[in-house]
Amino acid sequence: MYLDRKPIKVHEAVEAVLRFAKAGEIEYVPINESDYRILKAPIKADHDIPPFDRSPLDGFAVRAEDTITASQSNPIELEVIETVGAGGLATLIPGKGQVIRIMTGAKMPEGTDAIVMFELTNEFQREGKTFISIKRAFKPGDNISFRAEETRNGDVLVEAGRQVEPGVKALLATFGYSKVPVARKPIIGVYATGTELLDVDEALEPGKIRNSNSYMINSQIIKAGAIPKYYGKLVDDFERCYEAVANALGEVDVLITTGGVSVGDFDYLPAIYDKLGANVLFNKIGMRPGSVTTVAEYNGKLLFGLSGNPSACYVGFELLARPWIQHYLGSKKPHLQLVQGILKADFPKPNPFVRFIRSKMTIEQGKVYAEPVGLDKSGVVTSLANSDALVVLPGGTRGFKKGDEVEILLLNGEGSSEILKK
Amino acid sequence: MYLDRKPIKVHEAVEAVLRFAKAGEIEYVPINESDYRILKAPIKADHDIPPFDRSPLDGFAVRAEDTITASQSNPIELEVIETVGAGGLATLIPGKGQVIRIMTGAKMPEGTDAIVMFELTNEFQREGKTFISIKRAFKPGDNISFRAEETRNGDVLVEAGRQVEPGVKALLATFGYSKVPVARKPIIGVYATGTELLDVDEALEPGKIRNSNSYMINSQIIKAGAIPKYYGKLVDDFERCYEAVANALGEVDVLITTGGVSVGDFDYLPAIYDKLGANVLFNKIGMRPGSVTTVAEYNGKLLFGLSGNPSACYVGFELLARPWIQHYLGSKKPHLQLVQGILKADFPKPNPFVRFIRSKMTIEQGKVYAEPVGLDKSGVVTSLANSDALVVLPGGTRGFKKGDEVEILLLNGEGSSEILKK
Repeated sequence: MYLDRKPIKVHEAVEAVLRFAKAGEIEYVPINESDYRILKAPIKADHDIPPFDRSPLDGFAVRAEDTITASQSNPIELEVIETVGAGGLATLIPGKGQVIRIMTGAKMPEGTDAIVMFELTNEFQREGKTFISIKRAFKPGDNISFRAEETRNGDVLVEAGRQVEPGVKALLATFGYSKVPVARKPIIGVYATGTELLDVDEALEPGKIRNSNSYMINSQIIKAGAIPKYYGKLVDDFERCYEAVANALGEVDVLITTGGVSVGDFDYLPAIYDKLGANVLFNKIGMRPGSVTTVAEYNGKLLFGLSGNPSACYVGFELLARPWIQHYLGSKKPHLQLVQGILKADFPKPNPFVRFIRSKMTIEQGKVYAEPVGLDKSGVVTSLANSDALVVLPGGTRGFKKGDEVEILLLNGEGSSEILKK
Repeated sequence: MYLDRKPIKVHEAVEAVLRFAKAGEIEYVPINESDYRILKAPIKADHDIPPFDRSPLDGFAVRAEDTITASQSNPIELEVIETVGAGGLATLIPGKGQVIRIMTGAKMPEGTDAIVMFELTNEFQREGKTFISIKRAFKPGDNISFRAEETRNGDVLVEAGRQVEPGVKALLATFGYSKVPVARKPIIGVYATGTELLDVDEALEPGKIRNSNSYMINSQIIKAGAIPKYYGKLVDDFERCYEAVANALGEVDVLITTGGVSVGDFDYLPAIYDKLGANVLFNKIGMRPGSVTTVAEYNGKLLFGLSGNPSACYVGFELLARPWIQHYLGSKKPHLQLVQGILKADFPKPNPFVRFIRSKMTIEQGKVYAEPVGLDKSGVVTSLANSDALVVLPGGTRGFKKGDEVEILLLNGEGSSEILKK
């Protein structure tokens, strides 16, 4: 069935998928389990930073007015009356000619208004008292980190939708987020189709190959921020396939199948969508690889029918399923990041439809380059392992030459808020 | 103590650390738990790919010689004697004028030497038999994926030291790696120092701040591929600090402390190294931030004494501790990736020592740019959350201007095999 499929454009397919975007619920996880999760609420300052005027150095808190006459030729002497470490508070208030020894991070003692670092002082004892001598003058405010000079109570420091990374984690800790509000991860079911598929621990047999797509998709799902749930292989019996798909749909947020969407005799997925009464959003995209990529919707849940061809499966996931997952998580950059760059090798094939070429991206002398990896035969698994980018060649173009400027989707980039306009 | 510290260069510090590099042991993890782990052995093909000559299309396997006379004006008719799906094997051998219907991925039937896709045929029934008509000739080998055309048995497909990503996972599955050989993760102990530090779930008090470094380092350790083990806060008592450090050293592969390495009165770490009899590799690096970063070695184990200042702590970890961890894991690119790029804003401060500026990296029209984030006051936690790069300004330079070419370390890049030459 569906021999007469009408191809739609890539961006139309993405838009169709995102019409069924959902926002995941919030959940709270302990701060040290929040790595790589997506924030579901902004991080707000619950206090000023610094929270008080403090010393950024190890040194002495002085009254600047006491130092006015100090110079190389006229050093002045000041009495050290107390020592305060970080986290401590001074108990004395220095009078004229008195200072407090102070450590980095400690609160400025009352009555002092400048910090003199250790290195600019000479310390000595006299008559059981400790003194320092100083050879230059200081102004009020010298070497003080002032309250709120970095951040004010209530400031939004990181927007919702950002991923937790080390620098974000530091902020979460600073502002007391012992539990972090993140998006619940959606559960993505995966079914493989194909009687030729052996599992990873099965021995090879004539005519059969090992199932690689399910494992690859498992990693793509994890990388996209969701939880994979692998259901195994659909058998070659239509009724049992139908029931398996219908049952799995009840347990997941999205169901992905690999294979079974082409025009082969055992490509059951189109008939399953039919029998379910699912709304087929599209069953052909004007792109290579992945033209048979199909997405259907049933009761608001999406069924992604990805190609059984590894490259097509990979590309279909990244272009269509990843944005859905990232939307669910609340990411503001759900799509692959697109950059310009220079092609490092000829690509002589014509491109009747937009083509995504597995490539390796490099930066040389401040410029972005991309080199197609391997032969780019559509069944080539090996080249996917060496790709970190997809060169995008527009449909309706002839060959491209080394040195041509091209567009490049980054597989490990920071993402983009824009849908690829192809 | 150590007021007279002699600064060494950044690359000398990295080299000193890597003189104590260790190679972690191998462990085998189930394939679906191998994401982001580093391969400890290369992935080798255990069979050819394709493993047999196969059809890359849904169509008909023909004897090319039977089609020689076919043309638009002279269509030929061929009898369909069997259908074979992917994973199946033909049971008949076509004679003259006979073909086998074949699905994508199925093994080429004996006696056939070309594939004709569905779309180029007309199928019809006559006298209880199925026939197709073809309007063009095919050559032997047309539309066949030949055995081993992608990969030969025994080929090394991915080198040891690579991280498991979706494309790598696909290869692991293809070649039967149900258990994946990866490097055991090292355990990195973390102790914070500073009486001013409150834990994330404690209320603020005058003179105190929340501990952010330990949480940040926890994330950096995870990101670098290791297991963090947080010991809490060292108390302000030298003997108890000493014992805590000595005990922790026995339980970890590396011990990191944050704070306590400067010249303040309560900076105990130098004295602890002394009492341990540890070999202090260096206690000052000619760089900003992080000049007081100290590394000591005791019985072959490293103690990283990172600064208590968040930015300095962050930079010290990335430049020194990360490469040690990545070496342990067997990565071939243990250092931060360095690229050239263009500065997007003036940076007027002089740089007596090499300076690492927290920055945001962007790619615009195929070129790399970096913009310093925030004020870059050395205590600024907030800017770390918005950085994904460190602009590297060489020591002995004056200010830099917007548009100047600079070097940039990528915090989320693919890494580098080269030590930064600064």
